[in-house]
Amino acid sequence: MPTRNQHPLSQTYSTGTWPLRMSSPSLQEVNDPAANEELESIQEETLAGLKDMGCFGLQVPEELGGIGLTNTQYARMVEVVGMHDLGVGIALGAHQSIGFKGILLFGTKSQKEKYLPKLATGEVHAAFCLTEPSSGSDAASIQTTAELSPCERYYTLNGGKIWISNGGTAEIFTVFAKTRVKDVTTGEEKDKISAFIVERAFKGVTSGPPEQKMGIKCSNTAEVHFDGVQVPAENLLGGRGRGFQVAMHILNNGRFGMASALAGTMRGVLRKAVEHAANRRQFGSALSSFGTVQEKLARMAMLLYVTEAMAYVLSANMDMKVPDYRLEAAISKIFASEAAWIVTDEAVQILGGMGYMKETGVEKVLRDVRIFRIFEGTNDILRLFVALGGMKHAGEELQRLQKSLSNPVGKVEALCKEIVTRAKRKVGLPSGLSLQGDVHPDLEDCATLVTKAIDLFGEVVESLLLKYGAAVADQQFHLKRVADSAIDIYAMAVALSRASRSLLLKQPSAQHEELLCRTWCHEAFQRVRQALREANSLAWEESFAGMKLISDALVKNGGVVAAHPLGF
Amino acid sequence: MPTRNQHPLSQTYSTGTWPLRMSSPSLQEVNDPAANEELESIQEETLAGLKDMGCFGLQVPEELGGIGLTNTQYARMVEVVGMHDLGVGIALGAHQSIGFKGILLFGTKSQKEKYLPKLATGEVHAAFCLTEPSSGSDAASIQTTAELSPCERYYTLNGGKIWISNGGTAEIFTVFAKTRVKDVTTGEEKDKISAFIVERAFKGVTSGPPEQKMGIKCSNTAEVHFDGVQVPAENLLGGRGRGFQVAMHILNNGRFGMASALAGTMRGVLRKAVEHAANRRQFGSALSSFGTVQEKLARMAMLLYVTEAMAYVLSANMDMKVPDYRLEAAISKIFASEAAWIVTDEAVQILGGMGYMKETGVEKVLRDVRIFRIFEGTNDILRLFVALGGMKHAGEELQRLQKSLSNPVGKVEALCKEIVTRAKRKVGLPSGLSLQGDVHPDLEDCATLVTKAIDLFGEVVESLLLKYGAAVADQQFHLKRVADSAIDIYAMAVALSRASRSLLLKQPSAQHEELLCRTWCHEAFQRVRQALREANSLAWEESFAGMKLISDALVKNGGVVAAHPLGF
Repeated sequence: MPTRNQHPLSQTYSTGTWPLRMSSPSLQEVNDPAANEELESIQEETLAGLKDMGCFGLQVPEELGGIGLTNTQYARMVEVVGMHDLGVGIALGAHQSIGFKGILLFGTKSQKEKYLPKLATGEVHAAFCLTEPSSGSDAASIQTTAELSPCERYYTLNGGKIWISNGGTAEIFTVFAKTRVKDVTTGEEKDKISAFIVERAFKGVTSGPPEQKMGIKCSNTAEVHFDGVQVPAENLLGGRGRGFQVAMHILNNGRFGMASALAGTMRGVLRKAVEHAANRRQFGSALSSFGTVQEKLARMAMLLYVTEAMAYVLSANMDMKVPDYRLEAAISKIFASEAAWIVTDEAVQILGGMGYMKETGVEKVLRDVRIFRIFEGTNDILRLFVALGGMKHAGEELQRLQKSLSNPVGKVEALCKEIVTRAKRKVGLPSGLSLQGDVHPDLEDCATLVTKAIDLFGEVVESLLLKYGAAVADQQFHLKRVADSAIDIYAMAVALSRASRSLLLKQPSAQHEELLCRTWCHEAFQRVRQALREANSLAWEESFAGMKLISDALVKNGGVVAAHPLGF
Repeated sequence: MPTRNQHPLSQTYSTGTWPLRMSSPSLQEVNDPAANEELESIQEETLAGLKDMGCFGLQVPEELGGIGLTNTQYARMVEVVGMHDLGVGIALGAHQSIGFKGILLFGTKSQKEKYLPKLATGEVHAAFCLTEPSSGSDAASIQTTAELSPCERYYTLNGGKIWISNGGTAEIFTVFAKTRVKDVTTGEEKDKISAFIVERAFKGVTSGPPEQKMGIKCSNTAEVHFDGVQVPAENLLGGRGRGFQVAMHILNNGRFGMASALAGTMRGVLRKAVEHAANRRQFGSALSSFGTVQEKLARMAMLLYVTEAMAYVLSANMDMKVPDYRLEAAISKIFASEAAWIVTDEAVQILGGMGYMKETGVEKVLRDVRIFRIFEGTNDILRLFVALGGMKHAGEELQRLQKSLSNPVGKVEALCKEIVTRAKRKVGLPSGLSLQGDVHPDLEDCATLVTKAIDLFGEVVESLLLKYGAAVADQQFHLKRVADSAIDIYAMAVALSRASRSLLLKQPSAQHEELLCRTWCHEAFQRVRQALREANSLAWEESFAGMKLISDALVKNGGVVAAHPLGF
């Protein structure tokens, strides 16, 4: 558990103790992103180099053939990969971040010993098989079945999975399927999801052709079908009927790597934009002398700064075994994927016509990055999760207080005060950074803004809970704004924490970081205030109702409703 | 000139009087966007169909082989093309919207008679050659030269152009080059730009291979080189030394088609998103029942509604020969290209994994649409143009008033009042819609918001002019916000105008349009207020200074400045 005095970023790793089998030449020298994309797979030489470096078993214990990196070390490694080629990053991530992560987290000793060594060397690849044609965000509704044989020695697996990264290349699959499970107390039989380790070698496993995608083309994406596949009972993973929890745990656990990979991507793209802005001259001056460009570059730097802070606070907290990091993981995934999208889009804009051409490689990054807002939990679903998670903490406090007060209505003021006080610690950031003691005096103004934002957050959450009760879960217009506020508050907190540490350590870039932090907090606070105002005002209530009506009319009409301006 | 009672959208064209040689089968049936993209050119059959329909000479007078469409009719036609394939739209637009538009606008009788007939039928294609490696946004700095021969019978053209749409396929080029021009009053010789009609058949014209682009792949983009090309003196276009004005006039004149083409694109994409949201079920309900999706769909519909209004108000004003439509054209280009980007991006998000796959065709649209924020005047440059244009009107009034007041400082209050009053009419929308008399009583609340927004705009512009004087032109952080406000105010005005008209005509969709307009204006007003607050506050002044410092440090450092969170 992190203590007040132990900063999550205080673990440092000198390159001397870096456990990776780093061999020259570097990834940058070996890997050719454009060639991989053209080939729609990773070049043999790159693949061999990645295997040599141990990149296929980064977190597998050394005794099982891996190199046993901590989460933080893994994050640092994928940051490098993300800078050079997100497609390669996906192929590696689909393999170990989710593909065989279930074995690492939930596998029995014999499952680990059987599968991890050959997975860790990259001799065979893994894939994570959850999504089905009718089950995307609603993962609990999968239709694939696994029926236990009367002899109880195997399960028969039937069903089809889609959009499986490494689906066409993997030999080992973590597959989720419905199984009949008897409730121990009621004796009632129910369909519950279970997870299985499935080998391609089992009869009945087939995969479709590679999907044609917008980006990340060198990473294979394919359908995987299971047609009467007999899976040995000992390949059940994590307990019968525990599959949904296994899936969610894997996804939650895998998210931290995305933020650091995307931080790497942003760093690479920002460098290209800076180079262009410094060297390209128009109207007699370098582009970098124009305010319009300066604002873009500064915003890109701030987004990267916050993303890096989120990525490494998360991985450090995971390494310190905080009990629950799901909200931070969700926030980091949302923030990083949207930041990377904005940063890359602005890089294209700064590069102008050049940015639109394949040869500069930035448009490829924009295409690659687009999937991150969709996969492994769409940002829309994760926002609801963040909002409800954030509100739950405040809500639980509220409920407890309501019960303890004889006349809650008459004591609203006391109630509010208590909620706000608690919200400061509990604003949906269960393992969050404490702001006391960690803030450098020069950044006290920013800390005040964070505190104010948390106060506002607490007030609005309380108001929404009082108004809607449990039905708040259906108020998605409001929840979106609650989530946006929680994300911005968390972003302010990590920026503040990172910049404070830099100031305390008197790092050479401390003044620059102070500026990044202050400029960020100033704007983020205004966004939070606006979003919370929207979540809790009558005028916006009317707008939400209007948008619902507009949408309903579109759906009823199968598209545009308004008459064409010309009448035809 | 539009009068108060003549609504710009009041011209209607029944399909009976539609002058296009519309033959079945339709564009949708003939054109295959995916096939064109794969082929990196337009399929022969589609091309033949487009020629048959007269699509290569939409605005060429009938006596010269075209079909003589008005701007509004042309806009309606390219809207259809934009819905089906933006790549085809670019190929057609590069040909007639800019490629030979100079001949149409500035050509002599004999130039028109020589070139337009074969261009109108599509027998030969045209291209517009302005951009050079070192001259993008800064068009005035081109290096291509055209030297008049001693006999004065031809110009010798030398130089290279890049990113020329149709550059590899066109036979006729409108080329801009520096010429020596003698000032009639001073006798001094100066380099001034002139425009020329250049044929590929002239010796010395070569073009490069097709550029590999992110999207609009079926439209050819290539370098065009002129190596000692002898251009007959009679091919000078629009007068010697008048080339810059010719180029700007062509670009301004060509912009209206972009807005309507992109309106078509958005309409097509919105339909796909609505279909998916209506049919895809998750968590036991259609996606369209979730607030998160409803908000996206409603926003997409509002953006389309405003874009359509802008497109057809602009084309109608041009048809009515308003003296100056440059600001509206710039606003429409910025708004439409950003609206199309957002709408398509949200469509991808609603479609989820499906949206990222080639087969649904939406990711292609996202790639196609990206160029519109860059080409024919980047949105960044156009924003500065809008801001300065909008301020100029207020500024001229200010100057006049300042002169007439003996003690301006003492009479600031009177000054403000006058400015505000005038700004209401003059807020950078010279041919703009009057709000008096046109607003339906049911939308008076929206009209009040527009008026309030204009008041705020006038106040802030005045304050900035008083503070910076002429140096306001260098305050790009402020100008961006002034431009954003002007764009939003104009967007409110056209939405209000369109919805009012629909209510007055009692159109079936009038109530829906009222809702679109009200929801839009409510939000747009808050954006305007925020942007103007940012343009005129000390706290933001500090943020701007901070961003400048951040950007300067990035440029100095060649990329990221902040120390890595892990220290390595």
